[in-house]
Amino acid sequence: MPRDAEETRTRLLAAARAEFAEHGIAGARVDRIAAAAKINKQMIYVYFGNKDALFDTVFDRHVGAWLAEVDFDPEDLPGYAGRLFDYFEADPAALRLVTWYRLERPSGPGLQSVISVNEVRLARLAAAQQDGVLANRYTPVQLLALVQAIATSWSSMNPEFVVAAGADRDLRRRTVMAAVAQLVEQQR
Amino acid sequence: MPRDAEETRTRLLAAARAEFAEHGIAGARVDRIAAAAKINKQMIYVYFGNKDALFDTVFDRHVGAWLAEVDFDPEDLPGYAGRLFDYFEADPAALRLVTWYRLERPSGPGLQSVISVNEVRLARLAAAQQDGVLANRYTPVQLLALVQAIATSWSSMNPEFVVAAGADRDLRRRTVMAAVAQLVEQQR
Repeated sequence: MPRDAEETRTRLLAAARAEFAEHGIAGARVDRIAAAAKINKQMIYVYFGNKDALFDTVFDRHVGAWLAEVDFDPEDLPGYAGRLFDYFEADPAALRLVTWYRLERPSGPGLQSVISVNEVRLARLAAAQQDGVLANRYTPVQLLALVQAIATSWSSMNPEFVVAAGADRDLRRRTVMAAVAQLVEQQR
Repeated sequence: MPRDAEETRTRLLAAARAEFAEHGIAGARVDRIAAAAKINKQMIYVYFGNKDALFDTVFDRHVGAWLAEVDFDPEDLPGYAGRLFDYFEADPAALRLVTWYRLERPSGPGLQSVISVNEVRLARLAAAQQDGVLANRYTPVQLLALVQAIATSWSSMNPEFVVAAGADRDLRRRTVMAAVAQLVEQQR
């Protein structure tokens, strides 16, 4: 792809990500994305086919960035949970994207990038348990669901609660790490 | 209100709840609600003013039903978490409503019904800790966020994960209760 086209594509995907994070898939408007990216609306259809396919591309890139930035470590799940917390704190749009995805794509074949991440993580958790470096009070499936939920627990509260409780970021981070540490405590 | 008007109102609110759960606030369409409830669209504006106010009414009723059906017990948080899990399992539309609310009303004054629930629960948790019937490893604010997140942990996963892991409801319920039990274990 020539440099100009690549720049256009990058600008377009950034605008699309912001629009989808704000309004969701159904709520997003291609003409707003085109205006924000300062490109012709028809170009979007040429590049991506339609709005849903554009969302898929944005979401695949989100999954890629998340994997690159948040190291998953089965031997240190509290540390992983802390990093995951930091990631979504730094970029609330990322969590909104994930949430819209859940609401608006509740069924169907799913994205291959997401399926692969799940599979790899479950396998790594199982291997760590087999090696005795991860407590086995919970199965890999249970652990992944719990760690994920706890890491994003503050953002899963209603806005009224967040206003009342959400000020102290450091306290919230420590809460996440402490709760995950409890899950993987070796039993006596 | 005469009985006919009350029936109409009930039918309308049921249709509105289904529409908002499916499409969210921005995505909901008043004409679809009118058609589903078999009433004149203008009547909705007469009754409720506008779509946002209609959502407020639906959401207030959801909060009321949830309070009535899911007993909160600071002395038995694992039991509460199990009931909360059951509630959302039985009625996924309720969790979708809550999630849309979070995405589409991230700021602003908040609903009084929600603010009151938060306040009452935090006060009850604090009292239970004061009385020594609830472990105080976590503060009330931390506990409420963690218990809520854990109870809904399975539904906070991406759909691809749910397909892979979600079949065994009883296992998922036990996971929720076990994780919350760990949070409130008395420390030795």
